[in-house]
Amino acid sequence: MVAVEPADNAASPEVPTLDDIVAAHERIAPHILRTPVLSDEQLDAQLGATLFFKAEGLQPPGAFKVRGATNAVFSLPDDRAARGVITHSSGNHGAALAYAAARRGIRCQVVMPDNAPAVKRAAVASYGAEITGCAPAASARQTTMERVREASGAEFVHPYDDPRVVAGQATCARELLDQVDGLDVLLAPIGGGGLVSGTCLTAAAVAPGVEVVAGEPEQADDARRSLEAGRLIADDAPVTIADGLKTPLGPLTWHIVSRHVAAILTVSEAEIVEAMRLAWTRLRIVVEPSSAVAVAVVRRYPERFAGRRVGIILSGGNVDLDRLPWTLGDRPGAAPERRH
Amino acid sequence: MVAVEPADNAASPEVPTLDDIVAAHERIAPHILRTPVLSDEQLDAQLGATLFFKAEGLQPPGAFKVRGATNAVFSLPDDRAARGVITHSSGNHGAALAYAAARRGIRCQVVMPDNAPAVKRAAVASYGAEITGCAPAASARQTTMERVREASGAEFVHPYDDPRVVAGQATCARELLDQVDGLDVLLAPIGGGGLVSGTCLTAAAVAPGVEVVAGEPEQADDARRSLEAGRLIADDAPVTIADGLKTPLGPLTWHIVSRHVAAILTVSEAEIVEAMRLAWTRLRIVVEPSSAVAVAVVRRYPERFAGRRVGIILSGGNVDLDRLPWTLGDRPGAAPERRH
Repeated sequence: MVAVEPADNAASPEVPTLDDIVAAHERIAPHILRTPVLSDEQLDAQLGATLFFKAEGLQPPGAFKVRGATNAVFSLPDDRAARGVITHSSGNHGAALAYAAARRGIRCQVVMPDNAPAVKRAAVASYGAEITGCAPAASARQTTMERVREASGAEFVHPYDDPRVVAGQATCARELLDQVDGLDVLLAPIGGGGLVSGTCLTAAAVAPGVEVVAGEPEQADDARRSLEAGRLIADDAPVTIADGLKTPLGPLTWHIVSRHVAAILTVSEAEIVEAMRLAWTRLRIVVEPSSAVAVAVVRRYPERFAGRRVGIILSGGNVDLDRLPWTLGDRPGAAPERRH
Repeated sequence: MVAVEPADNAASPEVPTLDDIVAAHERIAPHILRTPVLSDEQLDAQLGATLFFKAEGLQPPGAFKVRGATNAVFSLPDDRAARGVITHSSGNHGAALAYAAARRGIRCQVVMPDNAPAVKRAAVASYGAEITGCAPAASARQTTMERVREASGAEFVHPYDDPRVVAGQATCARELLDQVDGLDVLLAPIGGGGLVSGTCLTAAAVAPGVEVVAGEPEQADDARRSLEAGRLIADDAPVTIADGLKTPLGPLTWHIVSRHVAAILTVSEAEIVEAMRLAWTRLRIVVEPSSAVAVAVVRRYPERFAGRRVGIILSGGNVDLDRLPWTLGDRPGAAPERRH
């Protein structure tokens, strides 16, 4: 665990406005799917709340990350775009940036931790991006990325701590609020905080009565501990099946999340796997562990959601179909229950 | 194999009109999902055609069958509805009828073959329907159903050979043609033929230039052989992983399919499993083997679809997540390769 100084003690970060979010939405509309909202009465009865699932896994590269990455890529002026884009990512942001770069016809370089799931690595490669491996720690991603960028001069698009990315992610909640009337809560998983930050900004701007709640794995609960401590705490390499949620908040996302989010609720690895299976069974979509965290939160904290209308962002659907946790049983690596 | 007389040598069956289809669509709209159409450029590049996937597995009970069942249930006059509805089904129609009956608040009885997947049995039960088991053969379903119906006086809603059901299934292609411009082909799996019949009627009425092609398992290819022979041929208990496609055509669906369908193309069990996995990976939705048949057809007969715009109806997503064919490997029952 590494305790870092809250960045907003220094310069105040550039927080996207509603105008930025609306502009982002127009910019990315030709390249993304307005994802459907799914519901299931039996699941509602079982969980005691009225749930609306925004199926972001149906986006072309399989996750909401396409929103922020596409906004960043298409807002670049031609001269900077010509040098390409670069990022570090455990997978979904890398694939999203590669997808967006391919649509604009520019180069894309992605630094990926060596333990990233094969399916996510393949997705990045499939869009023609160049992959460089690095050690699994967040710190290693950054140093490797800096080294690669020095050679190419590419534009760095951070997976979450970038106002262009946050403005793009904010379009997801904007659609959901447009698709469903009378929501009481917006619920999304939190890793680096790009999705939750965007959700907070949209809610604050267009639906201030709607509460924003984040779900986090117990084994990667740096955001919850940060909120409790009132300062940004970053774990360097947490171990959780929710591979998209291992990253710590950044200065920008911490600035937004710490001011807007109503609660960060945590769930165990076993609860994540159970929720994942439940979502697949009831909604019939492929939901990755990181997304299942939000579903697990509703199951674990029923009193918080009872009788309320809850919009849940199912963030992604990139899963290794050969390694589904419920078919792996007790084999190693199935559902890590201990922090290393 | 049982060769039966073509029913249209006798009385001409009651074929739904466009007015019936439009009325059905209005009737069922409050109860069904206007399912999204998904696409994937990489899949298009891989398969050499432009594919539009109508994700019917996202319907509340997990299959297009909800359209026909809901139309039948909600078009019943009150006095007949009061006695409830009854059907025989390998699963998806049973769950759909149970769902529709629950929404209308009437009794539902379902006769299910003893080898129906557990997940489909559970779905039927979850909507409060009463289940009676029977032998797996099509003939046994009918006799068991007659016996149960004698006691209850319920209205029989056939899984496919019923004009109310066919009119309901026809609304799926109607949406797809509305959602995607310039389709050249509509492609759907064929079992009893309700979905393909409805697709044929819609295409003939509103998009006569669009070709309708059906996909069928080699191991349950009674529809293909019927078309070739010019008379209805029914297998009594074919063995295929595509459990929704084991039923033979009926007089009504044979009447429609034999007059309208451009081709019935068959695929092997292994091809179905590969296509199922491909669809899960690329589209990130749960696609059951019966639906994967249509995807497998595009892979196996590329010359037929090259460069064309193809609307594929992914009919359902009810799958036993503990028994995915690619995780079962060579275990018995994984992917039957031989006809018994």
